[in-house]
Amino acid sequence: MMVRIVADWGTSRLRVWALNAGGEVTGAATSDAGMSRLTPDAFEPAFLRAAAALLPEEGPVEVLICGMAGASAGWQEVSYKAVPCEPITRPERITTRDPRLNVRIIPGLSQSAPSDVMRGEETQVAGFLAAHPGYNGVICLPGTHTKWVRLAKGRVLSFRSAMTGELFDLLSTRSTLAGLTGDGWDDAVFDEAVNGAVVSQTALAADLFGLRAAGLLSQAAPGATRARLSAILIGQEVAGLRPIWQDLPVALIGDATLADLYHRALRAAGQRPERFDAAELTLAGLRAAFEIYREEPQ
Amino acid sequence: MMVRIVADWGTSRLRVWALNAGGEVTGAATSDAGMSRLTPDAFEPAFLRAAAALLPEEGPVEVLICGMAGASAGWQEVSYKAVPCEPITRPERITTRDPRLNVRIIPGLSQSAPSDVMRGEETQVAGFLAAHPGYNGVICLPGTHTKWVRLAKGRVLSFRSAMTGELFDLLSTRSTLAGLTGDGWDDAVFDEAVNGAVVSQTALAADLFGLRAAGLLSQAAPGATRARLSAILIGQEVAGLRPIWQDLPVALIGDATLADLYHRALRAAGQRPERFDAAELTLAGLRAAFEIYREEPQ
Repeated sequence: MMVRIVADWGTSRLRVWALNAGGEVTGAATSDAGMSRLTPDAFEPAFLRAAAALLPEEGPVEVLICGMAGASAGWQEVSYKAVPCEPITRPERITTRDPRLNVRIIPGLSQSAPSDVMRGEETQVAGFLAAHPGYNGVICLPGTHTKWVRLAKGRVLSFRSAMTGELFDLLSTRSTLAGLTGDGWDDAVFDEAVNGAVVSQTALAADLFGLRAAGLLSQAAPGATRARLSAILIGQEVAGLRPIWQDLPVALIGDATLADLYHRALRAAGQRPERFDAAELTLAGLRAAFEIYREEPQ
Repeated sequence: MMVRIVADWGTSRLRVWALNAGGEVTGAATSDAGMSRLTPDAFEPAFLRAAAALLPEEGPVEVLICGMAGASAGWQEVSYKAVPCEPITRPERITTRDPRLNVRIIPGLSQSAPSDVMRGEETQVAGFLAAHPGYNGVICLPGTHTKWVRLAKGRVLSFRSAMTGELFDLLSTRSTLAGLTGDGWDDAVFDEAVNGAVVSQTALAADLFGLRAAGLLSQAAPGATRARLSAILIGQEVAGLRPIWQDLPVALIGDATLADLYHRALRAAGQRPERFDAAELTLAGLRAAFEIYREEPQ
């Protein structure tokens, strides 16, 4: 019996599933062999180790991968597809040393103006579309580099990414705010600050200095300052990208904690986003991608 | 003859001048003993070393200092004065071990809403006002934490700081943009990008990711990407703080290179700022502060 393996290869993690002919998960594995820890040569051995328990003695094994495996520093580079286009077009066959493996990588998406790229999120978008084929709206995928994707008629029309999560990490660990933003969290402070941030049109760099000054002038708890920093950054992103989501439905796809913060920021800005689980949609997208590749001429 | 010493104690540098009774500079010294390298106990020895050639054998020596010497991690903490107020009110006498020294530190300014603080720039503002007593407008002091100061009738009405310089340093050395922003610079790219940034109302975090995506999609020279990063950050600051400077004169005070970038950003936004030298105004402010302290009851 043919074994099919699908994988989501992220910057910090690799997740692998075995699927039966009906698309049901028959096995799963997770590894910390993310792209950031691997040279291109190390991808195939890392895959074989992570998927060892799922692989048959003999081939062939059909493998379909989304995410950073197709980046220039990945397993083998797979060119971006330029939007507007369907989220997943034709997964690209790459060469392998192990003769059992028939590996395809799902291309990421690119946009020329404004310049933008994604690798991996297109598969979650495809998973969402599999269940909502007529969706006309926006998908927000919070993360280190949050994506805002405009969809209509089964296609990605355009998208924007914001490095809000990366800014939060840099500012809370490496900046003059680092001493003020310790552990802990204050939900009430986040809500109050995000309500202000989504309507404010002042410069982000000034709001950030205001956080530092407030720390010098009064003793705020580190958890409160941490929540306020997050609120300023997410609030500015949501407000600045209002032209993308205004008057359209917004679907939020992401892990519970971060998606919850975007949910509260969008509600403060007058949106009513609906939430969806990221892991389920990744798997749904990988299943959908298998069908796309099987339908195309070989 | 009484010797007077004035000093500007910054985070990374200490500058000292000797003045005669007429306020003329009779000697000067510079040291790298900035606040960031000193514990509070080390300030007095550092001062005596830096000013050694300017000090008389016997006292008393009147010393007047602006900047970070009055910070909580400085020589001795001097409380902020809350705006609205004159830029320099009463310099505060601190205790010293050396009996020759009569040291006063100029207080910084604070603002409660929005929270803000400055230490050192108030002296440049006082120096500017000494030559322009009726100034009704804004002073912009570019730096790691750029200050925008609203002045009227000899008083600071309000001010905002923006950590634009710090963001530039963090993003160009510690972020996923670091590999794209090497040495070098492209003036034409700065001008083109700053023209776009001063009118754009999109999220800063999205513009920053756009820079990364452009680097992945095409091979921009590192100097061009560095100039574009600077233009995005300064342009967003100038545009975001437009309510502060719109319809008012703007005086730009700062070192030539950075002030030039703000000058070009402000011109792109429709302003016609006038430029002034920072070092001269610091000295003018310290001279003015001497008069303020001498006029007050002892």
